Amino acid sequence: MKNESNIEPLVWRDNQLHLLDQRLLPQRCLYLAYADSDQVATAITEMVVRGAPAIGIAAAYGVVLAARQAWQDAGDDWREAIKPAIRTLSNSRPTAVNLHWAIQRMQTCFSSIQGEPESSLLQEAIDIHQEDLAANLKMGQLGAALIEKSCGVLTHCNAGALATGGYGTALGVIRAAHAEGKISQVYADETRPWLQGARLTAWELLQDGIAVELLADSAAGWLMKQGLVEWVIVGSDRIAANGDVANKIGTYGLAILARQHGVKFMVVAPSSTVDMSIASGDQIPVEVRGSEELLQLGDQQVAAEGCSAWNPVFDITPAEWVDVIVTERGVVQKPNSDALRGVMNAAYS
Amino acid sequence: MKNESNIEPLVWRDNQLHLLDQRLLPQRCLYLAYADSDQVATAITEMVVRGAPAIGIAAAYGVVLAARQAWQDAGDDWREAIKPAIRTLSNSRPTAVNLHWAIQRMQTCFSSIQGEPESSLLQEAIDIHQEDLAANLKMGQLGAALIEKSCGVLTHCNAGALATGGYGTALGVIRAAHAEGKISQVYADETRPWLQGARLTAWELLQDGIAVELLADSAAGWLMKQGLVEWVIVGSDRIAANGDVANKIGTYGLAILARQHGVKFMVVAPSSTVDMSIASGDQIPVEVRGSEELLQLGDQQVAAEGCSAWNPVFDITPAEWVDVIVTERGVVQKPNSDALRGVMNAAYS
Repeated sequence: MKNESNIEPLVWRDNQLHLLDQRLLPQRCLYLAYADSDQVATAITEMVVRGAPAIGIAAAYGVVLAARQAWQDAGDDWREAIKPAIRTLSNSRPTAVNLHWAIQRMQTCFSSIQGEPESSLLQEAIDIHQEDLAANLKMGQLGAALIEKSCGVLTHCNAGALATGGYGTALGVIRAAHAEGKISQVYADETRPWLQGARLTAWELLQDGIAVELLADSAAGWLMKQGLVEWVIVGSDRIAANGDVANKIGTYGLAILARQHGVKFMVVAPSSTVDMSIASGDQIPVEVRGSEELLQLGDQQVAAEGCSAWNPVFDITPAEWVDVIVTERGVVQKPNSDALRGVMNAAYS
Repeated sequence: MKNESNIEPLVWRDNQLHLLDQRLLPQRCLYLAYADSDQVATAITEMVVRGAPAIGIAAAYGVVLAARQAWQDAGDDWREAIKPAIRTLSNSRPTAVNLHWAIQRMQTCFSSIQGEPESSLLQEAIDIHQEDLAANLKMGQLGAALIEKSCGVLTHCNAGALATGGYGTALGVIRAAHAEGKISQVYADETRPWLQGARLTAWELLQDGIAVELLADSAAGWLMKQGLVEWVIVGSDRIAANGDVANKIGTYGLAILARQHGVKFMVVAPSSTVDMSIASGDQIPVEVRGSEELLQLGDQQVAAEGCSAWNPVFDITPAEWVDVIVTERGVVQKPNSDALRGVMNAAYS
């Protein structure tokens, strides 16, 4: 399957997982090699790899590495020996449900494996990876079809090839719509504190020859007021059964501002992001990261000494503010529990 | 008159204007000395000094320096000789009307001056400076009286002692309310791209022993959703006759989010910020600064090469989103043209 964006955040090669170190982009393109699952978990925590689908895929490959070690250590008792490594992977970040979804799917294979587990599990991880890419390509088509005419669009954070198995969720829709001549201008919030918009989204789109204009996160409302965008298009880290959407901090405010300005709000995420086990967004754990992400720039202290900071890195947008959720299984207009369940239960062809 | 905050962005000493270089805060407290009005204009453009009232005061002292030079160059013809320097000061930044207000007030003195102009004009500049400080102290009382019980407040950018003749507008209200035990927690947006919140507001409040918690600008909506603030309190760079408010980019979105969450929105600005010559905010020029403020951090490129950026540094909040405007002449609830005119025409005691 062709990853049309040519950007690969995760590569399995030479029996190791290679992660593009997203902390160094766009200045450096450096892949780090991992042969140990605990180190993969650390890489997820420290955001070498980020983006809900990409985290899930990384964790799946992490399970492969953990199984290799457990087989070496315990032979046929590998299913018991692997448990601490699974726990470490599961705890690497709290909000993106794709992490748990992928680990669960890998564990579902355990019972049918005979003998050494690595080869079977590697095939499952590759399947997860390839299916995510295929889902993104499908969502690109479905989302682009919702955009009626050439218009400006705004995206937040990075929900692109870098955040997924390739092509991207929100940026997949933007890629597909751009190819159809439906995008007059892509605007990207710089996305503090980690600057995913400035560092990752801009880089990714420019690689594909798609012009992008950055703005300060706080300028998004003023951008809408100028009539420069007709859609806000974002990804998600977890969608509750009622359609509440966890995504990068700032998404909640964007959704409210979009409605106020008659700008439509599209969430693009594979079905692996939908957590039907929780009734609403109230049950989604919102990760709060260290204050240093706000108080420092690189190694330099920028804020006043003695200052504290509140750094929630996700927020929950109630379904009422979302106009449409795009999954690879179908499109959910005006999301609610019934509509989302209908799409999730649909056979995926 | 006591500047209770002990922070002085502008000091006239040894026949020169000394400006605290706000680009270096909070790492370094360095005053730069100016004996030339064109250099004062450059300092305003380059944001050595910023904040609408402080810019006005700096320009007033700039006129003093320009008059000194014009008197040396042209003697009794100084009123003609000073014109290019006045134009340069007037053009140093576009949005804050206090700049034009202060220059106009200085020019109003010209006709009554006999002989060398410097001493008379210096007294006028000192009056402008002292009156601004007095206005801030008055607004502090008026604004604090609006806060009924101990609560969390959110501020954006820096509308403090550093932005004024001392004490501050929005931060003046916060200082006064804090002294009255009415502030349970101050939250400050970091305020990209220039980070006035992280670098200036946090520093200023901590100097006064007022605890402050920083957040990413895009987290403000989520903060309100948590019920953690009852007021948003900001300054302004220009208020139109109908109550439309120009202020730091992001203010517009904050006002909409505040209304959505039942959070009250207070604008604090001296009457020198009110521009009764323009009917609405549509006529306020919004400064757009260089894209490098978004594309670079310090000397380092952070965004992808080839990326462009949109960097409007102010926005206009329509009066309908503002709950109250506090000036030293009085408080305007639910601002509109009639209410604002009434307060502006009130005798100021």
